[in-house]
Amino acid sequence: MIALEIPLRWGDMDAYGHINNVQIVRLMEEARVLAFGIPSGTGTLDETTPTPHVNLLAGVGESVMTLIAEHTVKYRRQLPYRGVPVHVEVGVDKVKGASVEVSYAFYDGDDIAVSATSTMVFVGQESGRPVRLSEQQRAEIAKLR
Amino acid sequence: MIALEIPLRWGDMDAYGHINNVQIVRLMEEARVLAFGIPSGTGTLDETTPTPHVNLLAGVGESVMTLIAEHTVKYRRQLPYRGVPVHVEVGVDKVKGASVEVSYAFYDGDDIAVSATSTMVFVGQESGRPVRLSEQQRAEIAKLR
Amino acid sequence: MIALEIPLRWGDMDAYGHINNVQIVRLMEEARVLAFGIPSGTGTLDETTPTPHVNLLAGVGESVMTLIAEHTVKYRRQLPYRGVPVHVEVGVDKVKGASVEVSYAFYDGDDIAVSATSTMVFVGQESGRPVRLSEQQRAEIAKLR
Amino acid sequence: MIALEIPLRWGDMDAYGHINNVQIVRLMEEARVLAFGIPSGTGTLDETTPTPHVNLLAGVGESVMTLIAEHTVKYRRQLPYRGVPVHVEVGVDKVKGASVEVSYAFYDGDDIAVSATSTMVFVGQESGRPVRLSEQQRAEIAKLR
Repeated sequence: MIALEIPLRWGDMDAYGHINNVQIVRLMEEARVLAFGIPSGTGTLDETTPTPHVNLLAGVGESVMTLIAEHTVKYRRQLPYRGVPVHVEVGVDKVKGASVEVSYAFYDGDDIAVSATSTMVFVGQESGRPVRLSEQQRAEIAKLR
Repeated sequence: MIALEIPLRWGDMDAYGHINNVQIVRLMEEARVLAFGIPSGTGTLDETTPTPHVNLLAGVGESVMTLIAEHTVKYRRQLPYRGVPVHVEVGVDKVKGASVEVSYAFYDGDDIAVSATSTMVFVGQESGRPVRLSEQQRAEIAKLR
Repeated sequence: MIALEIPLRWGDMDAYGHINNVQIVRLMEEARVLAFGIPSGTGTLDETTPTPHVNLLAGVGESVMTLIAEHTVKYRRQLPYRGVPVHVEVGVDKVKGASVEVSYAFYDGDDIAVSATSTMVFVGQESGRPVRLSEQQRAEIAKLR
Repeated sequence: MIALEIPLRWGDMDAYGHINNVQIVRLMEEARVLAFGIPSGTGTLDETTPTPHVNLLAGVGESVMTLIAEHTVKYRRQLPYRGVPVHVEVGVDKVKGASVEVSYAFYDGDDIAVSATSTMVFVGQESGRPVRLSEQQRAEIAKLR
């Protein structure tokens, strides 16, 4: 399990004055990037780029995209904006041939405000076909267990 | 079933150059608003405000919030940005005491690019407690069947 | 001058319950795309892609990016969310060697809620240098006068 | 001058793969909140809420909104996404009866990528009229000089 503190933005609130349900999904994206690294072929990586907690995208070529196949999101309670980062715990639930199921818990104090899962798949940019997880990726995921 | 044409924005694309998975959830929000009406207590409603396809929020007081309890989203294929609106079909799958399960299909041509469900709940702004669906709401939903 | 009706989204509102100032800049982006075409090298253009009002990007190669050099935005009054599109008028104020100044007026009824300008520049993706406007671009802009 | 490190999000990139010009304006919003405090009447403030650098909204009643009257934004160079926070310097340029002009510089390394200004006004929620700066606000701003 990887523990993260992700800053909220004032603009993550909606007209109801709480963190908008869509922005929770945006924060899930940000949690994946912080936990597992910047998707290959995006961003300008150099020596300033921080090392991810688990380098899930290590050894993945520039031509492999990280796509989302599925999300499930359970909103258990409203998440208020307090001007402080949200505590998020990220884990890997399942590993299949070409996909990884990620789980998230968003906390407000001691309470879980949101629990969610995402299925990430690796797809060749040219072929459009799933790319199987490499040994290096499996070794990185094993660090989480 | 309610058929909608929802305009995409150029900014819905991400660094991969396709419609971002988070923005699909934003479009689900927009689909709910177009199909079922503007959540009570938000927006500036006047005679210019269009009538929703099914007025799911009719008779809901200003003090009742429409919240999301759960989303499931299946991304079947990448949704490209073509400068044209996306065709979305919205339905109501289940009706419970204080919640409604909405289903969505996003099309790219004849193919379903995304299928999704959301559970909407009605919650008193003061009490924070679920508010049961009124007869008027049930009658509106029945129009969809 | 090009007149546009741009749909607002419920999520364009912020915690104050009106259209957020940042989302106005998002709508300026959308107005440019509708008026002048989809920036080259982005999106999946095919026969379904609508023709822009003025094809400012006609003949611009895939390797030329459309960048923003400057925005000025004057918020004259709050823009409420009414569930109806916002009426926007877009024009071209100035044309220089490698840049175009665009002007916008956002209306709420008969009143201008926001007036704004943007300077667009054309930059070679490889060289990073400004690319001068072509005759074709100048001819398109002339249609606006 | 107040120096801030504001985290970027992967989703701040657009289809060109750099930080989108609209998201710069979102980051300006976030810079104001971090520098000057959370706008009154929004968010859930409690003892966990961090103290702003300069408490520009101290003593402003719940019924006073902080609105934006004007932005000017100069994009001097593309801001890449590197997975690291952006360094932003915020200052107050001018103080008038009911408004404050804020300036921003966004850095990429030693270079200024974006320089911008915003005019903030204080408006009564009921009256819709400008509210003059209090002595307390002027004293806070003086700390910046």
